Amino acid sequence: MRIEKDRLGEVQLDDHILYGIQSARAKDNFSVNYKKTSLRLIYAIVKVKKAAAMTYIKLGVGKEGVYRAITDACDIILSGQADGQFIVDAMQGGAGTSTNMNVNEVIANLALKLSGKNCGEYDFIHPIDDVNRGQSTNDVYPTALRIAAIELLRDLSEGCAKLQQSFQKKENQFDDIKKLGRTELMDAIPITLGSEFGSYAQAIARDRWRLYKVEERLRQVNIGGTAVGTSANADRKYRFGVIDKLREMTNIGLAAAEYPMDITQNNDVFVEVSGLLKALAVNLMKISNDIRLMNSGPAGGIGEIKLAPMQMGSTIMPGKVNPVIPEMVIQASMKVIANDYAITAAASHGEFELNAFLPLIADSLLESLSLLERTVIIFRTKCVDLIEADSERCLKLLESSYAFTVEYTQKLGYDKVSRIIEENNGNVDSIKNALKNFEK
Amino acid sequence: MRIEKDRLGEVQLDDHILYGIQSARAKDNFSVNYKKTSLRLIYAIVKVKKAAAMTYIKLGVGKEGVYRAITDACDIILSGQADGQFIVDAMQGGAGTSTNMNVNEVIANLALKLSGKNCGEYDFIHPIDDVNRGQSTNDVYPTALRIAAIELLRDLSEGCAKLQQSFQKKENQFDDIKKLGRTELMDAIPITLGSEFGSYAQAIARDRWRLYKVEERLRQVNIGGTAVGTSANADRKYRFGVIDKLREMTNIGLAAAEYPMDITQNNDVFVEVSGLLKALAVNLMKISNDIRLMNSGPAGGIGEIKLAPMQMGSTIMPGKVNPVIPEMVIQASMKVIANDYAITAAASHGEFELNAFLPLIADSLLESLSLLERTVIIFRTKCVDLIEADSERCLKLLESSYAFTVEYTQKLGYDKVSRIIEENNGNVDSIKNALKNFEK
Amino acid sequence: MRIEKDRLGEVQLDDHILYGIQSARAKDNFSVNYKKTSLRLIYAIVKVKKAAAMTYIKLGVGKEGVYRAITDACDIILSGQADGQFIVDAMQGGAGTSTNMNVNEVIANLALKLSGKNCGEYDFIHPIDDVNRGQSTNDVYPTALRIAAIELLRDLSEGCAKLQQSFQKKENQFDDIKKLGRTELMDAIPITLGSEFGSYAQAIARDRWRLYKVEERLRQVNIGGTAVGTSANADRKYRFGVIDKLREMTNIGLAAAEYPMDITQNNDVFVEVSGLLKALAVNLMKISNDIRLMNSGPAGGIGEIKLAPMQMGSTIMPGKVNPVIPEMVIQASMKVIANDYAITAAASHGEFELNAFLPLIADSLLESLSLLERTVIIFRTKCVDLIEADSERCLKLLESSYAFTVEYTQKLGYDKVSRIIEENNGNVDSIKNALKNFEK
Amino acid sequence: MRIEKDRLGEVQLDDHILYGIQSARAKDNFSVNYKKTSLRLIYAIVKVKKAAAMTYIKLGVGKEGVYRAITDACDIILSGQADGQFIVDAMQGGAGTSTNMNVNEVIANLALKLSGKNCGEYDFIHPIDDVNRGQSTNDVYPTALRIAAIELLRDLSEGCAKLQQSFQKKENQFDDIKKLGRTELMDAIPITLGSEFGSYAQAIARDRWRLYKVEERLRQVNIGGTAVGTSANADRKYRFGVIDKLREMTNIGLAAAEYPMDITQNNDVFVEVSGLLKALAVNLMKISNDIRLMNSGPAGGIGEIKLAPMQMGSTIMPGKVNPVIPEMVIQASMKVIANDYAITAAASHGEFELNAFLPLIADSLLESLSLLERTVIIFRTKCVDLIEADSERCLKLLESSYAFTVEYTQKLGYDKVSRIIEENNGNVDSIKNALKNFEK
Repeated sequence: MRIEKDRLGEVQLDDHILYGIQSARAKDNFSVNYKKTSLRLIYAIVKVKKAAAMTYIKLGVGKEGVYRAITDACDIILSGQADGQFIVDAMQGGAGTSTNMNVNEVIANLALKLSGKNCGEYDFIHPIDDVNRGQSTNDVYPTALRIAAIELLRDLSEGCAKLQQSFQKKENQFDDIKKLGRTELMDAIPITLGSEFGSYAQAIARDRWRLYKVEERLRQVNIGGTAVGTSANADRKYRFGVIDKLREMTNIGLAAAEYPMDITQNNDVFVEVSGLLKALAVNLMKISNDIRLMNSGPAGGIGEIKLAPMQMGSTIMPGKVNPVIPEMVIQASMKVIANDYAITAAASHGEFELNAFLPLIADSLLESLSLLERTVIIFRTKCVDLIEADSERCLKLLESSYAFTVEYTQKLGYDKVSRIIEENNGNVDSIKNALKNFEK
Repeated sequence: MRIEKDRLGEVQLDDHILYGIQSARAKDNFSVNYKKTSLRLIYAIVKVKKAAAMTYIKLGVGKEGVYRAITDACDIILSGQADGQFIVDAMQGGAGTSTNMNVNEVIANLALKLSGKNCGEYDFIHPIDDVNRGQSTNDVYPTALRIAAIELLRDLSEGCAKLQQSFQKKENQFDDIKKLGRTELMDAIPITLGSEFGSYAQAIARDRWRLYKVEERLRQVNIGGTAVGTSANADRKYRFGVIDKLREMTNIGLAAAEYPMDITQNNDVFVEVSGLLKALAVNLMKISNDIRLMNSGPAGGIGEIKLAPMQMGSTIMPGKVNPVIPEMVIQASMKVIANDYAITAAASHGEFELNAFLPLIADSLLESLSLLERTVIIFRTKCVDLIEADSERCLKLLESSYAFTVEYTQKLGYDKVSRIIEENNGNVDSIKNALKNFEK
Repeated sequence: MRIEKDRLGEVQLDDHILYGIQSARAKDNFSVNYKKTSLRLIYAIVKVKKAAAMTYIKLGVGKEGVYRAITDACDIILSGQADGQFIVDAMQGGAGTSTNMNVNEVIANLALKLSGKNCGEYDFIHPIDDVNRGQSTNDVYPTALRIAAIELLRDLSEGCAKLQQSFQKKENQFDDIKKLGRTELMDAIPITLGSEFGSYAQAIARDRWRLYKVEERLRQVNIGGTAVGTSANADRKYRFGVIDKLREMTNIGLAAAEYPMDITQNNDVFVEVSGLLKALAVNLMKISNDIRLMNSGPAGGIGEIKLAPMQMGSTIMPGKVNPVIPEMVIQASMKVIANDYAITAAASHGEFELNAFLPLIADSLLESLSLLERTVIIFRTKCVDLIEADSERCLKLLESSYAFTVEYTQKLGYDKVSRIIEENNGNVDSIKNALKNFEK
Repeated sequence: MRIEKDRLGEVQLDDHILYGIQSARAKDNFSVNYKKTSLRLIYAIVKVKKAAAMTYIKLGVGKEGVYRAITDACDIILSGQADGQFIVDAMQGGAGTSTNMNVNEVIANLALKLSGKNCGEYDFIHPIDDVNRGQSTNDVYPTALRIAAIELLRDLSEGCAKLQQSFQKKENQFDDIKKLGRTELMDAIPITLGSEFGSYAQAIARDRWRLYKVEERLRQVNIGGTAVGTSANADRKYRFGVIDKLREMTNIGLAAAEYPMDITQNNDVFVEVSGLLKALAVNLMKISNDIRLMNSGPAGGIGEIKLAPMQMGSTIMPGKVNPVIPEMVIQASMKVIANDYAITAAASHGEFELNAFLPLIADSLLESLSLLERTVIIFRTKCVDLIEADSERCLKLLESSYAFTVEYTQKLGYDKVSRIIEENNGNVDSIKNALKNFEK
């Protein structure tokens, strides 16, 4: 048991606890039971801390043992051995200060232990003066958020590429299956089932490209700008060094923001990224709905394709199988769109040199990215790749429609063909005969 | 041509122009070309002005001729003869001051003309000192918005009642048409087409009730509270008198807010009303989608009902008829939901004693109300009332499904019935035989 | 280790695992790593199961030992001893079937164990034929969601009542502190600090009332309607009995829906409830923003009140204290508004006899309710109750403004007073002198 | 008076009316009184029609006189002489067919008149067979929407460039005015007023760049794909010719979509564009809020800058001037965000080969573009360019804060400086003395 103090009083902490008084206060203050701060974000912050410590070692600013211990502590965290120590709710006030302090405190205490000291002996290694040296939550947190977002974006973009390929495989596989095209849910004109999937491939290809390209906007980071972007307390050499290190560690082409004050206070880039995730969500919803409609039935629906059954469909209706994967995809998409609202609202509420609501942006953006990344994989492997066509049903529906009449309008005029259809009450055989008579 | 002046300079106005310098400035300042302020709102403000003038006459505070001229001017405006004089864009800063001043100026100038004076001779009848006497935009505008909203709510509630009745007529008409029930777009268990429409009637009945009940929340008005709700510059007798008059004029049970400072600054009531409009929109979307699906085809869809054709459906495909009315209903519903966002955002941005963004709330709320009021009527008269059933198609789809098997699960157990369905590949006749054998 | 089978194949399960094959499949199918289904919802489903089993015992339909074991199993779950067995992600397809099956399987296996059998021996106690008897996900799940929502609503309404009281205490405490009223962030006219808090109390009182009243709409439940509301496979006596039992168990005045088909397919009631939560969120945002503004400073802001410090404010700026609680409240409010979007989108996408996207509605609604319930408590205890006034600062700002001039407009006319202010460049002393001269 | 007929019956039309029966039906069907279809969109459709007619002339497909008359008719419309003939509400079902037919009919009748015929003599010039030849609403309408959107995007991007320049001018002008930086509304560390505006310039520069770059995504058009993207009824030479012509006419680098079926059914590109408009809206809201805060007062606020008065601020408080332009900017931004919801909802609801809700996308997108285009201009000319600084006030606030202490933390450690601030109760002079003592 140890006791930590600050101006507000004391907090008792068990010996095995690596976080400190500020984390404990934040846990209590933000006890809304929403969810813990994303480990993705925690790890990215730890990477920033490690890069900073390595930079100080390289610059030879003294206290080398301290910085070595800090980098070792960072490695331990990054290996997943301290996950339980990050206890602050994602729904937190303070613009991320509590999450930054949680990281600072855990690193300091781990480093102390590695140095043969006890937790809380901050005179040796201090959470702020050492772990946070030359930094502020306001540059560490947004920089880490960008790194975490880029890592997820890359995975998601890769997932979209694979989904696109799966759709293209279906495009080839179903290339010669003729079917009815539909507009506004009504019979339109003939297409192929392959082209249906080809269109989906095109849409997802656009998503892939957009997500790939937007990374460059996220690469500008404000690390080194500290509290408001003026680089107060951040040494010039450190500022350049830390970005070099981070670039090396993350394999992301990070660049120092030309005007760090801007990046520190303006969050339009996250709105932009979320807007693109929303575009992907819109495509996924549209495609999933089509798939559900084509799969509908077996007796009372369209039935042009068959989804592979993934689980029992009902607790009362035997034999029922539901399109559970597209249904999940649609809900994940709706959630991404809802998160976009949260991001937009938070980003629009920034004031002066900072946006106090960045934790909500971070939580919503990383949730959307993670959710989509998994959704796209599950959609592909458990739904799209397993789709089978009912080519007979496709043909039957096509042949029972008068979709073919569109080609007669150029010769006979739109009004005449319309009249023929109407006079024959939409009966396909009669229309065919009537049109043949006209052609003679 | 006349010239009006204020501290910023002069403005030239043609003689026939009834608005004054403040309206002209506002027209220029807010020249976003969005749309004019709703006449519904203008008229409601004019009613407040008229009630105030009548109250002053009754209280005998002097200047009776002025107030008579003002009430006469209000009547002229309410008869629609001055619509073109309300020129300020709905997208305005200033919390509605410009719209209030536009009304004040037009009334003043009309009253001047009726008194044999020239426009602009404000020494005789002053837009603020006389027309706006004892008032502030901050009590006039929200009071008028409530009146306009209640008027539209009543119409909408009535429209919902009629729509509910139309669905109930269809419920009775289609009572004995058996059809397949569907869950998650898959065949479920037998129902009737009548019950489908009966469910819609129930949902709309809830909307009607909600919209009817919420009026009471809107009836609390802050007129008399003036700038911040403290009743500065508003005589006590006037405050009570004006509400009595307004109640009489509008036939709405308006009541003085018990704590006018609250109503002046907090706009949660509009969020509440908009939330209910959103609930109606959600029901309309769901029902319209069902109707589109049941009407889909004629060859490649479900085809259980037939919508009456309202117009030609395509510029290229002859004979095509689209479900244009449900499509319009869905879009109007989406718009109402979008407006709800605007209302929510604006309402959440209030500061201290006022919400500067009330004009956006007013525009969005009145647009949603008007749009729904018309939409509900068109949906009923051009779609719902004209729906015809294809009972043969309903029966055919039902009989080709194994929806009936649900009743066997109690006797045979869920797993056994599932196995029978699977072993017979979903073939209805084979399943029937197999189940008969089991029953023996 | 045991093996369970269904038509798709086999799944191996460790002996201590109480869930079965359908839960395992669902865990895998919906492995988006979003979050587990809310235990609030799980418990409410368990209550429905228990009420059903007790009803069957009372009706004496046989298998009494089975139903006793089921009710005992339910009690074990409700005591929190099996929380880890509910493994299905909240982001699930299938309209809640997987969550219902997860509950069915855990209850069945627990009941088997209590009966001296092994997990998986479903011939004795079957997850569907016994635990789910006379039920369908489509009536169990929405009924449970209503119960869980009402439970949270009651807590939240109570929390609002207490928050209202806290604001009223501040209203009294600050009753004689004069301050500047502000509209559009500009100096307006004098008010008291007490009335500022009194207005907040009024707004929250409205929320409390709304949340209290809306319970009645949630009390109509469709239990007994089974798959599509037609009560297929649900015995009449069971249907009435189960609601009686549930009413007794939950202490909520639940009532059988008059038209269960409607409630099964239409989700406007959840949109309505969420809309009211949004209204509360809007009030919380507005109030929190005011509090942040009044607390701003210490040197460069308004500084009329002082929030109690809850934690260190910065990792770089010493002595800085941030308004972290209002900041958290604002973000929670934004999240509630974002969730409202998800609920609205999901509710509007229902099709025919069911809404496949109910799990997203459930997750979003219960999250909003829980979040607000905690937020309101934290806001009260860690912020509102601890607010102190700086009455000197309040007075100083008031006295340096010409807010008092409003009372002169009635005597002197608006234009004259405006001119005096302008001619004296807004200097308070000069204006006072000039006005005195006029009065003489 | 003439009579036009279709399969649904007859419609009487006055002689001067250039639209025909389909427009008249649509006017009636969609009589929601929302607003007329945007003339921006109408004109872009007319450009497509003209390009098509010119292509047919060039290809020498016969009927040259007809196509000449059509191009002449198009020119008359584009000169603004027939604006009143476009009567269909923007809130229309049918995926834009009614707007396309309105254009087809007006062009046909104008062309008939130019050819010495009477309106309605469609045997000579037919709205579909001639004006719509080789086209479908489904390729004309989205192509025109892209053209209209690009035209507005270019204007908006230009407007952003100018706004950025204005901010940069202020950056230079206020370069040496020291002021307090603020985070979370609390005093942070010193900055300059210039850098405040420099940050705004950077944010708007990003918007400009994004809006400029996204044009390329809109340039892919599906004209020539007709109903579902398969180019049914569209001659190959016509398809290439019409895009060449359109490129020439519009001065936009339009390109034929490689996979027109995709573009016809998927609308993610509009979601993408709207997402970027939302990012701009977020920046405008943040900046406008800052400006309002810095301008707040005159006595009870921050008062670091002064906005130019644009109009009288109140109908009751003399001398009050409100920040009406930033208030308008904020509301326009909220509206753009609300429109983004409508676009997202509509885009996600597409089905199969078309999105029936494209008219809502078109209306919302063009409204957002127009609104922002005007808003950015008004914001610049009536607000930003006219901002004046109160450098004394800036300095006074800065000097009364202990923001300077941040520089001492590196030397003395964070905890020590914090303690000094606390021990001196935040008193600036005492803190300075205490720190000096330490330095010695």
